[in-house]
Amino acid sequence: MSGIYGINVKMSIYGESHGTSIGMIVDGLPPGLKLDLAAIEMEMLRRAPGQNQLSTQRRENDSFAIQSGFFDGYTTGTPLCVVIKNSDQHSKDYSILKDKMRPGHADYAGYVKYKGYNDYRGGGHFSGRLTAPLVFIGAVAKQVLKEYGILVGAHIFSIGNIKDKAFNQLGVGDKLFKELQRKAFCVIDDVIGNRMQENILKAKEAMNSVGGIVECMVLHIPAGIGAPYFDSLESHLSHALFSVPAVKAVEFGDGFDITRLTGAEANDEMNYVNGEVQTLTNHNGGITGGITNGMPVVFRVGIKPTPSIGREQHTVSIGGQCNTTLAVSGRHDPCIVPRAVPAIEAVTAWIVLDLLLEAKKLER
Amino acid sequence: MSGIYGINVKMSIYGESHGTSIGMIVDGLPPGLKLDLAAIEMEMLRRAPGQNQLSTQRRENDSFAIQSGFFDGYTTGTPLCVVIKNSDQHSKDYSILKDKMRPGHADYAGYVKYKGYNDYRGGGHFSGRLTAPLVFIGAVAKQVLKEYGILVGAHIFSIGNIKDKAFNQLGVGDKLFKELQRKAFCVIDDVIGNRMQENILKAKEAMNSVGGIVECMVLHIPAGIGAPYFDSLESHLSHALFSVPAVKAVEFGDGFDITRLTGAEANDEMNYVNGEVQTLTNHNGGITGGITNGMPVVFRVGIKPTPSIGREQHTVSIGGQCNTTLAVSGRHDPCIVPRAVPAIEAVTAWIVLDLLLEAKKLER
Amino acid sequence: MSGIYGINVKMSIYGESHGTSIGMIVDGLPPGLKLDLAAIEMEMLRRAPGQNQLSTQRRENDSFAIQSGFFDGYTTGTPLCVVIKNSDQHSKDYSILKDKMRPGHADYAGYVKYKGYNDYRGGGHFSGRLTAPLVFIGAVAKQVLKEYGILVGAHIFSIGNIKDKAFNQLGVGDKLFKELQRKAFCVIDDVIGNRMQENILKAKEAMNSVGGIVECMVLHIPAGIGAPYFDSLESHLSHALFSVPAVKAVEFGDGFDITRLTGAEANDEMNYVNGEVQTLTNHNGGITGGITNGMPVVFRVGIKPTPSIGREQHTVSIGGQCNTTLAVSGRHDPCIVPRAVPAIEAVTAWIVLDLLLEAKKLER
Amino acid sequence: MSGIYGINVKMSIYGESHGTSIGMIVDGLPPGLKLDLAAIEMEMLRRAPGQNQLSTQRRENDSFAIQSGFFDGYTTGTPLCVVIKNSDQHSKDYSILKDKMRPGHADYAGYVKYKGYNDYRGGGHFSGRLTAPLVFIGAVAKQVLKEYGILVGAHIFSIGNIKDKAFNQLGVGDKLFKELQRKAFCVIDDVIGNRMQENILKAKEAMNSVGGIVECMVLHIPAGIGAPYFDSLESHLSHALFSVPAVKAVEFGDGFDITRLTGAEANDEMNYVNGEVQTLTNHNGGITGGITNGMPVVFRVGIKPTPSIGREQHTVSIGGQCNTTLAVSGRHDPCIVPRAVPAIEAVTAWIVLDLLLEAKKLER
Repeated sequence: MSGIYGINVKMSIYGESHGTSIGMIVDGLPPGLKLDLAAIEMEMLRRAPGQNQLSTQRRENDSFAIQSGFFDGYTTGTPLCVVIKNSDQHSKDYSILKDKMRPGHADYAGYVKYKGYNDYRGGGHFSGRLTAPLVFIGAVAKQVLKEYGILVGAHIFSIGNIKDKAFNQLGVGDKLFKELQRKAFCVIDDVIGNRMQENILKAKEAMNSVGGIVECMVLHIPAGIGAPYFDSLESHLSHALFSVPAVKAVEFGDGFDITRLTGAEANDEMNYVNGEVQTLTNHNGGITGGITNGMPVVFRVGIKPTPSIGREQHTVSIGGQCNTTLAVSGRHDPCIVPRAVPAIEAVTAWIVLDLLLEAKKLER
Repeated sequence: MSGIYGINVKMSIYGESHGTSIGMIVDGLPPGLKLDLAAIEMEMLRRAPGQNQLSTQRRENDSFAIQSGFFDGYTTGTPLCVVIKNSDQHSKDYSILKDKMRPGHADYAGYVKYKGYNDYRGGGHFSGRLTAPLVFIGAVAKQVLKEYGILVGAHIFSIGNIKDKAFNQLGVGDKLFKELQRKAFCVIDDVIGNRMQENILKAKEAMNSVGGIVECMVLHIPAGIGAPYFDSLESHLSHALFSVPAVKAVEFGDGFDITRLTGAEANDEMNYVNGEVQTLTNHNGGITGGITNGMPVVFRVGIKPTPSIGREQHTVSIGGQCNTTLAVSGRHDPCIVPRAVPAIEAVTAWIVLDLLLEAKKLER
Repeated sequence: MSGIYGINVKMSIYGESHGTSIGMIVDGLPPGLKLDLAAIEMEMLRRAPGQNQLSTQRRENDSFAIQSGFFDGYTTGTPLCVVIKNSDQHSKDYSILKDKMRPGHADYAGYVKYKGYNDYRGGGHFSGRLTAPLVFIGAVAKQVLKEYGILVGAHIFSIGNIKDKAFNQLGVGDKLFKELQRKAFCVIDDVIGNRMQENILKAKEAMNSVGGIVECMVLHIPAGIGAPYFDSLESHLSHALFSVPAVKAVEFGDGFDITRLTGAEANDEMNYVNGEVQTLTNHNGGITGGITNGMPVVFRVGIKPTPSIGREQHTVSIGGQCNTTLAVSGRHDPCIVPRAVPAIEAVTAWIVLDLLLEAKKLER
Repeated sequence: MSGIYGINVKMSIYGESHGTSIGMIVDGLPPGLKLDLAAIEMEMLRRAPGQNQLSTQRRENDSFAIQSGFFDGYTTGTPLCVVIKNSDQHSKDYSILKDKMRPGHADYAGYVKYKGYNDYRGGGHFSGRLTAPLVFIGAVAKQVLKEYGILVGAHIFSIGNIKDKAFNQLGVGDKLFKELQRKAFCVIDDVIGNRMQENILKAKEAMNSVGGIVECMVLHIPAGIGAPYFDSLESHLSHALFSVPAVKAVEFGDGFDITRLTGAEANDEMNYVNGEVQTLTNHNGGITGGITNGMPVVFRVGIKPTPSIGREQHTVSIGGQCNTTLAVSGRHDPCIVPRAVPAIEAVTAWIVLDLLLEAKKLER
């Protein structure tokens, strides 16, 4: 299998880049949720391609058509199905890819897994285009979380070696999240953001691509969400995050850096502030023992440079069973990181909602 | 929930550090597998505490008693239950922890989640002791994987800032794995290993602790294992790895470093070698699109310094709802990384077996 | 949740009777299956309404549009999504049902569960119309099962008190199945079938409805499919069968009648026939200990009379919180049993395929 | 797989009749539940063998040892593991069964599924003895349900052709349930019960066995529990009920009899009684559209005669691949129905709790 996840809010995704449509079924949403469709559209637009020179020139407005589970402005509680039509496909661009495997891509792994029957056009089912349904469910999840006061935000933490400011883990407020969501290029420091954009355009000109890191935070999440072992918040978040194409690394709190601290440095000391337990630092990123401790949940996600590049590279011809070279033509993103930001936020909101419902279930 | 995972080989774990026993049920093992009990015992011993000064002085031989699913030397195909008795508990050591929350530990998060009803003695259900059942299932999985020629190995990649050699991803052979598994301190370069051990002992003397990174590799795994999106090998591996207590970061292939490469550098170019598709480099760690591509699977896991330290730290008293300090007495590991190595190997073997069976299912 | 089931071939359904469309995602089909679309259409037609006086006059051709997972005539192995547009809705017919609960229907139970937010038009998500996606997956499953020589067939066993011949459990062959699938009114004995049809039309004239029993059989299914306890074939089949609207009873083999036999009568004695183990009788319906024993799997499914009838009945007004009466106008089936036959076959084929793949997984 | 079920309260069972122990892990119980161990023991005793001439002479006190998830008298919310030691095994009695397949039993089906590796002693994993863990979880579930005022009760509805009174579905109160649970032979009408017992003893003397039907009811269950389609209460209950060994039929409400009513007769008309919606009849057994409607949930379960009988029957020798005969010696129940009553109640209580928690999850 490949396309179903979630304990309480289950998502089934489907679709290929050049098929009739992509979409999903969400099962487990509570009934009576008044969906703000304009807000969902805005989230979809943040991810949509073709908006500037930094992304692929494929134009998809990603307009969605809700098929079910939504009636008179409210969720019904039954499965909610969303269909997003594919429109601006140039399938011919991809015909060569039936035979030549793109280095760094899923082409060869998919060819073996699906025994050559998979739709190779535009990456088929592997296409980053399938993050659109993820953004939809994330947008809905954000609306539910807002009822509980929980906010999810992310920014481009780095492009190549250029780094944005980090979320000041204890001082960041809701205001920054709102600003970030309005920005066309989602960084805290716009001067650094300009350098990042130049870097991306330079790679584009050089028929190359660049990667980067996204930092994400969940604010006002209560303590007690998650579980030890297999339902840890870290397990579920990483499971969903590694489902986003191109993600190669996930770290919570200080992540790999915490391995270089001593226990005395790494332990987040605790105290009461206005009757609430807080920690003085947040090296653990708001999660201990797989469960939230009341501090902001913070993590970083490493995203590799787009594998589709115009430069010629060595690869194999599956039909000829011989070596060859390939320069990937067609439209592609010189850097997928900016468009990954809303996808990262989306899977985060979904998983947090999923485990929030899990916790509610046990209340008596 | 917290204790069940796996698609095809499902594991249910149970137990608290100071309860009657810990253990698990494994469901989905094929019948007719001749279990090498001595090999399982050896794996359990690699993880067991009390073997040297580097680990807690609690002595547990972790001898397991198979209750079911094993008959006349072979697995029966029915659920296999393993019970590991708790023996050398000093429960009094922990009585203070009912009230004082250990910084960096799950104590407070667990208190909130379980509304104060959880067994606080020795970390209760959160105890690293529950990796023993994980090692058991891993040892069984390794035996099945060996039938398919697949090998799993790991080593201590770093302790604090001291780094071992990295697995030479394309040159490492089965021989190194055998050597590593026999080593009391599991590093490639023993000179570096000695420095690491000194570092750990120094931390112990200073009533402090240190963390580190484990590197793990799967050799001879065929292409086609995993899936795009939610059943990606990266999703399942990270899900299981973040279930291991103290893990805060997971990266595949070059991981966070790949974000600093360009596409031209990061893409693993392909060619035919003796009729088989291989890549010239392995920046992607053997996984593209969530599916193995035939190259070794390589990843690193960041483990935080043990939170239980003898130094006094600020924390809260839950009963008194006031601030206080705590110096954790009792027996604890100054560094959990060496004992984490077999646990990391184990969950890896289990998950690889799980997705291997998933792939087999679809063969026609 | 309500809409996902299956271990290996997972189905997610969605849709409301008067929404934009109904449909499903199937996850876990093997790649490379050449779909016979004409055969699928024929199965869909067997279930479709509006074909004669025995069923509702709503006309739906139930033409399906595959959105994904199907490329160049073959399944790709990725999720297969099917959309079936709703067309001939007369939503006004149903407006009164927002307030008045139809006796025998899900209206009140659904109102409470979904807190009044569910789509009440035409039964909404509860509509028998959602068996169309079930028939689709069943048609695909039948094609895979045929590769293994496994056949699924069913017939109308009774309408009210009028009974068809029973499947002669040991003598029935493939030929009868083919005949049955071509019949407009699916009974073994057409003379009895005529009496059944008269009975249905008489009920229709009397603004009433009738129920009946469907008998289903799986031929040439090998021994060893299923499991003890929670993955028993009986557990999974009944789970899926009770998902079909209006089903109130399921019995395997002799079912309730076996409770009136002694052990000496009920036990199916065994012998070797041409080197294969067979039983002399089949009181157990081909399943012992939850696992197939190599004999035909036989079971019966009790279907209640359609609750929507033209006669006036006592019921409640939810808005007025008072008692009232209701005569259900609009188009409805005087007997749902004939259209249930392909749905019963379909869920059977799906579940048998699901557990067949489960068994294959464990082969070494 | 075979041994894990439940959405919110997941149960993993393990064990073989003649292995070291049988037992289970329950995952998903709320923390802070004060377990009444004496009440659990009483439930276990209701199922335990060796209490009178009606059951097998194997004596097992079925005393359980809780391993985890229970601390200071309360559930902790972590996985609760229970171990029940096997003690009074006479394994030699069964050695012949390695070769000779008992007619009506799972022996042959299990032999094929497990490729000859399963533990054949005493039915191994297929043994009715594994209903003991089911009774444990049921006893715990009953205690949680009682907090919500929900009661579960059952009685022997028939033995062979001898029928007890049916639950007067609308008039039965809590008092009858208490009486029934105290009775050694669990019928409403003790005179009929005496005839049933004579019938069972007669079968025993004749080296034969008899079957029967259990009727079960859930009182005071609120409307809105369950879901349409795959999470219908009927789907989940039947799934669990068919997991109980020897169950061959399940019907809700009037069950197969409802197929012989017209819609006008079968529809349960509704009215307000003291501000609550009730139905005048309960032909649907309290469930419409897969969801409770506020009326008592009623169903019947058909249980076949015990296959192990002393009479000689035709069967096969697997080793010799030839025909032979078998008279099953050893200790066995001439009728399993009385001991099935607590098992039926138990799985019912468990599933009702499971879906009750599911409904709670969606409350906002």
